[in-house]
Amino acid sequence: MIYFDNSATTAIDPTVLKTYTDVTTKIMGNPSSLHNLGTVAGRMLEASRKQIADLLGKSASEIYFTSGGTEGDNWILKGVAFEKRVYGNHIIVSSVEHPAVKASAEWLATQGFEVDFAPVDSHGFVKLDALAALIKKETILVSVMAVNNEIGTIEPIHQIADLLADKPTISFHVDAVQAVGKLDVSEFLPERVDFATFSAHKFHGPRGVGFVYIKKGKKLQPLLTGGGQENNQRSTTENVAGIAATAKALRMVLTDSEAKLTKLAAMKEVLLTALAEYSDVVVFSQRDNFVPHIITFGLKGVRGEVLVHGFEAHEIYISTTSACSSKVGLASSTLTAMHVSPKLATSAVRISLDETNNMVEIEQFLTIFKQLHAKFQKIQ
Amino acid sequence: MIYFDNSATTAIDPTVLKTYTDVTTKIMGNPSSLHNLGTVAGRMLEASRKQIADLLGKSASEIYFTSGGTEGDNWILKGVAFEKRVYGNHIIVSSVEHPAVKASAEWLATQGFEVDFAPVDSHGFVKLDALAALIKKETILVSVMAVNNEIGTIEPIHQIADLLADKPTISFHVDAVQAVGKLDVSEFLPERVDFATFSAHKFHGPRGVGFVYIKKGKKLQPLLTGGGQENNQRSTTENVAGIAATAKALRMVLTDSEAKLTKLAAMKEVLLTALAEYSDVVVFSQRDNFVPHIITFGLKGVRGEVLVHGFEAHEIYISTTSACSSKVGLASSTLTAMHVSPKLATSAVRISLDETNNMVEIEQFLTIFKQLHAKFQKIQ
Ligand SMILES: Cc1ncc(COP(=O)(O)O)c(C=O)c1O
Ligand SMILES: Cc1ncc(COP(=O)(O)O)c(C=O)c1O
Repeated sequence: MIYFDNSATTAIDPTVLKTYTDVTTKIMGNPSSLHNLGTVAGRMLEASRKQIADLLGKSASEIYFTSGGTEGDNWILKGVAFEKRVYGNHIIVSSVEHPAVKASAEWLATQGFEVDFAPVDSHGFVKLDALAALIKKETILVSVMAVNNEIGTIEPIHQIADLLADKPTISFHVDAVQAVGKLDVSEFLPERVDFATFSAHKFHGPRGVGFVYIKKGKKLQPLLTGGGQENNQRSTTENVAGIAATAKALRMVLTDSEAKLTKLAAMKEVLLTALAEYSDVVVFSQRDNFVPHIITFGLKGVRGEVLVHGFEAHEIYISTTSACSSKVGLASSTLTAMHVSPKLATSAVRISLDETNNMVEIEQFLTIFKQLHAKFQKIQ
Repeated sequence: MIYFDNSATTAIDPTVLKTYTDVTTKIMGNPSSLHNLGTVAGRMLEASRKQIADLLGKSASEIYFTSGGTEGDNWILKGVAFEKRVYGNHIIVSSVEHPAVKASAEWLATQGFEVDFAPVDSHGFVKLDALAALIKKETILVSVMAVNNEIGTIEPIHQIADLLADKPTISFHVDAVQAVGKLDVSEFLPERVDFATFSAHKFHGPRGVGFVYIKKGKKLQPLLTGGGQENNQRSTTENVAGIAATAKALRMVLTDSEAKLTKLAAMKEVLLTALAEYSDVVVFSQRDNFVPHIITFGLKGVRGEVLVHGFEAHEIYISTTSACSSKVGLASSTLTAMHVSPKLATSAVRISLDETNNMVEIEQFLTIFKQLHAKFQKIQ
């Protein structure tokens, strides 16, 4: 089997799973409990928080655990909006955000907030001028992802940070779910970023665990109220084992990241070079300012799902741009925002690599693609 | 070690953990993925949903997964309130609800909803007359827990169901987090209940997983919007392994439940009989209409936390009523709602048993209590 769908989800790392099982069996207390079992659990929780904070160059008090990227995005969008409503009701999100951000913004629009979607250029990069033009005195939040999950654009987070430098009342949120391990932390977490979202299962951590970065002093309303856990910001009995496993996974993915990125870039280069040979293939993922692990392309006239199933027959697993939209058969929303024609957009497939993949797999993929390509040409 | 804090959290069952590790290593796909790995993951997800539904006597389409009890409570309270706002803005929750319900209601009050807290009698039971008197034409939701987590009252869910029988426009939510395995499902899920909340870590399942029951046809707004998972009601990549483990845990806790309940009742009886011998002990958990596994009492003049630490020195783990309030040193909100004096309320400690406990542990507990009691008497 060749798994090229790592942006949908990754396999849990065996050592990460070991951390999970060790912690869940040995540290069973509820961190809120007064007795010693609670204290021990609380210590493990805080050690994990510290480890994550250190890896990101942030303070432990700026890290809050969640159930994943979707909760993080919902919490920050809705929490900031409700918190800052008295100051303004205008929100800007990019037009290529993940549905977790987009749908949160759309929901806020039903609650009296005004939402603008910042346009992107034909390659998928947020247009800085257009974004700047949308900002007004009622603007309380700008949300732009670090790495687009459908085609792998690295959005201009530093330039947006510069744009917002003299606008301290506007909160800046970055969905960093697809960036971890694929981009240096400094590239997507400059000082100006106030909030950021992370999800463990995208970097070989457990499913159902994530965290958000909330810059010191920045306020938002909780999404989950209750027992007052996470410094009263996010209630529920803490998933200590899942959290410890997440810290471990983050440490592992950030270890030797340069070597991993070089490996990914080499694999991407081989793919791009080979795909360029086909005149009926359109590649959406470019070389510059794109992450090395996502390669999205379309074979003209062939629907993405047909290609996905073609590869599946050879136990090669790729995807139609995003796992979320795949089942409902929607065209990629990122490609639509780039004004790619609907027909071409529905042909898109996404390869998402990972440091566990290798060049032999790339070659096998290309061999099968050649076969599939020949087959589809005959049919047409 | 003697663990008598099972209402705070339970140890994960080894076979449940095995399900988790098996599924997370063998079924790594994202259920939303189009390819076969996604299909296999989706099948496991739906099989787990079906299993849970069958165990509760409900349909699979009425079960939605969450990250735990707190998310379930927040989702239902806020989701129903926002959904039904056009029909009315009045909500009733009991005055002994878990903070996840109470704080959600309080937050809704800041959003223009009118919230009433239904009073309880001196034993902790919701007063039916008082609840009835609070209902008005703007009432959209009534939320009453099945089993109180602080003292173990079994709330009169059937009578409330009767009360609401001719008021079909009022949604009825039951927080069933503490009821699972301790009360027959029919006792807390009568037909009139529209929504119910569950949490896996309270019945030897994994931390960070829960589910809600949403009766067919009942609507609420999602709390987590995004990729459209869970029939568009709760987005995020599904924690398939955690969910499969939860189904397993539910099946296990409901197996032989009669024998387990008999065992718990016998242990409770020994505790109640022994505690009755102490003239300076006040027991809050009664025999009738209280669950068999929670025994809450106060030793007059001794703060609960002092007793907790006294037992801790002997590796016996009990709690000050609820894990959530323990750290902040608040008096039990349930006892406060019962009009127990603040002084007596702060003396309260909770023993929460489980089918894994046994009579030898009860005897050891009572031996240590005798020693501690003598020691504290001397000090006073
Ligand atoms: C950019 C981005 N944001 C958010 C999410 C949601 O993450 P999760 O599946 O952990 O809810 C995803 C993954 O689906 C993503 O790719
Ligand atoms: C009655 C009740 N409701 C809700 C919760 C919250 O559950 P969780 O810890 O899974 O968020 C708890 C447990 O703390 C509880 O006892």
